[in-house]
Amino acid sequence: MMRNQVRLSVFKWSCRKKHLCSVFTGVDKDEFLRDIYPQRRPAVLRGVSLGPCLEKWTVDYLAQKGGDKEVKIHVSTVPQMDFLHKNFVYKTLTFNEFVKRASEKKHTDFFLCEDESYYLRSLGEDVRKEPADLNKQFPDLAKDFHIPEFFAPDQFFSSVFRISSCGLQLWTHYDVMDNLLAQVTGKKRVVLYSPQDALHLYLSGDKSEVLDIDSPDLKRFPDFVKAKRYECVLEPGDLLFIPALWFHNTLALQFGVGVNVFWRHLPADSYDKKDPYGNKDPVAATRALQALERALHTLDELPADYRDFYGRRMIQRIQKRTYCDSLTNSTTQEGSDSTLPSGQFTKPG
Amino acid sequence: MMRNQVRLSVFKWSCRKKHLCSVFTGVDKDEFLRDIYPQRRPAVLRGVSLGPCLEKWTVDYLAQKGGDKEVKIHVSTVPQMDFLHKNFVYKTLTFNEFVKRASEKKHTDFFLCEDESYYLRSLGEDVRKEPADLNKQFPDLAKDFHIPEFFAPDQFFSSVFRISSCGLQLWTHYDVMDNLLAQVTGKKRVVLYSPQDALHLYLSGDKSEVLDIDSPDLKRFPDFVKAKRYECVLEPGDLLFIPALWFHNTLALQFGVGVNVFWRHLPADSYDKKDPYGNKDPVAATRALQALERALHTLDELPADYRDFYGRRMIQRIQKRTYCDSLTNSTTQEGSDSTLPSGQFTKPG
Repeated sequence: MMRNQVRLSVFKWSCRKKHLCSVFTGVDKDEFLRDIYPQRRPAVLRGVSLGPCLEKWTVDYLAQKGGDKEVKIHVSTVPQMDFLHKNFVYKTLTFNEFVKRASEKKHTDFFLCEDESYYLRSLGEDVRKEPADLNKQFPDLAKDFHIPEFFAPDQFFSSVFRISSCGLQLWTHYDVMDNLLAQVTGKKRVVLYSPQDALHLYLSGDKSEVLDIDSPDLKRFPDFVKAKRYECVLEPGDLLFIPALWFHNTLALQFGVGVNVFWRHLPADSYDKKDPYGNKDPVAATRALQALERALHTLDELPADYRDFYGRRMIQRIQKRTYCDSLTNSTTQEGSDSTLPSGQFTKPG
Repeated sequence: MMRNQVRLSVFKWSCRKKHLCSVFTGVDKDEFLRDIYPQRRPAVLRGVSLGPCLEKWTVDYLAQKGGDKEVKIHVSTVPQMDFLHKNFVYKTLTFNEFVKRASEKKHTDFFLCEDESYYLRSLGEDVRKEPADLNKQFPDLAKDFHIPEFFAPDQFFSSVFRISSCGLQLWTHYDVMDNLLAQVTGKKRVVLYSPQDALHLYLSGDKSEVLDIDSPDLKRFPDFVKAKRYECVLEPGDLLFIPALWFHNTLALQFGVGVNVFWRHLPADSYDKKDPYGNKDPVAATRALQALERALHTLDELPADYRDFYGRRMIQRIQKRTYCDSLTNSTTQEGSDSTLPSGQFTKPG
């Protein structure tokens, strides 16, 4: 059943209009910083050396080196995870047992059903305080994976295992840090949407309520068709650069092991200090959203048609103050204008 | 030239898609409060008794009874007033001299040029503190005009003369109070837009930057075509009900005299106390807009692409919290839902 679902889904998306992510081969740091990073667009980097993990990370090897360290995982009866209806549960397994189960289609031991799906997003030692770091949680495996040196060491935030059953699909969401998603084994389809399409994604916090991006319910989500779909299929050895705020949805076309490396794009004090996941909004954005809540609370004193009207006046004001047209069409951004995107704002390396 | 301009303009708008305002004949207070007022839509009321002004208010009579009281007027070389380029000046004339000049096409005495246009919006005695009241500023003329008793006396806010040269066009704007525009002499075209079209009108405060609504510059104002145009031509004796927040643009098809009566739609303490014009936003709306400015100021700490993104997230939040879909299509609003428009919120009479 899982295989059919994947095939059907692959068929569906292949019929939809999509924009393939740019692919760059054999990129070095200079090229990345000059041609790719300032664009603030997703890009597939092929042929960057990731170390011996590419050959070594078989299921048996991972199980042996990862050992019986306990990991917290997502388990669901269907491969499409649904955060709205919480169709998954959190369970704990030893890493070696998890890897074995995630790599197989049918399970002898299981939590929910024999074809349940698994997903690991590795965490830090102190889950609530510390970001994940492969070097700390999986030192033996970490040796096999060479983090591309595309950013300064002091910008490093976290390195995260992403290991999933074949067919596993994770909902569309954004993170607030720049990151590289390294696909070590297996194939993964990634669909991305620009931060500028936020209004077409029916957000609930940092997640899109449009779960089935391949055949969305357009009665409920009519504006979803306006979202420009970027897409790539990552093969073993590929890196995907996901700029901060870009929405992404991943679909494991095979059992696969990835490492996701996050680093700070903004000055360190821009970020929430209590954010081990790297998905809490920058403090200025959080304060702005809080001020907005106060504004909306004040509007509640007025009748519905007045609220509607002043809501629109507020929107008009926001559009005037924050919309950055230069992001929409351009592929390169030059000059020192204050409305330039953040490619020029920070120095990543 | 002025006549040609009016004709051309009449020709142009007649070619555009428009929605005629509903016309009600011989409406009494009960009917107004039951069928018209709760709809929160503009409506032309025909055959409501306005008193002897209809027969009496000739130019000579107005000049004689209005006397040599000084009035502050708008004067412009072209009939289309342009608040963006300030193509008009404020001048002072005696009321009798003003009425004579406004009624003639060419002037012997003039400020700017011999075919200059005039417009009077009468003011209170203390211009900055007191709303206009015909009974106080023009007691002799006020006797001839019977204010329709469609609202409770304690809701009365102001009564304002609107006297304009043939061809005079006033920019699209909204007021924050409900009002009746009584056309006593002359014909006037009024174009109106719903408060829900605020985002299509390119606002600068309470005014639309789209000055030429009959042949708008659609390169500059592409969304203007989305604004639904309501229209009516007021004849002597007609009343136009303009609900608070509805945008309106007036074009005098002839020299004409109107009286505009404003009353409070919301509880009295909802309004700015220092607002003799009745066009300052309700205090809750002003506070909300100020809180929004603080939010936007906070966002300035982030680079342009982050501002753009969090601007969109704020917009999404506002849409969710304030948009009132029930306003869009319905013609009647029933029930006690908190999202009902303000037709049910206050008791006008």
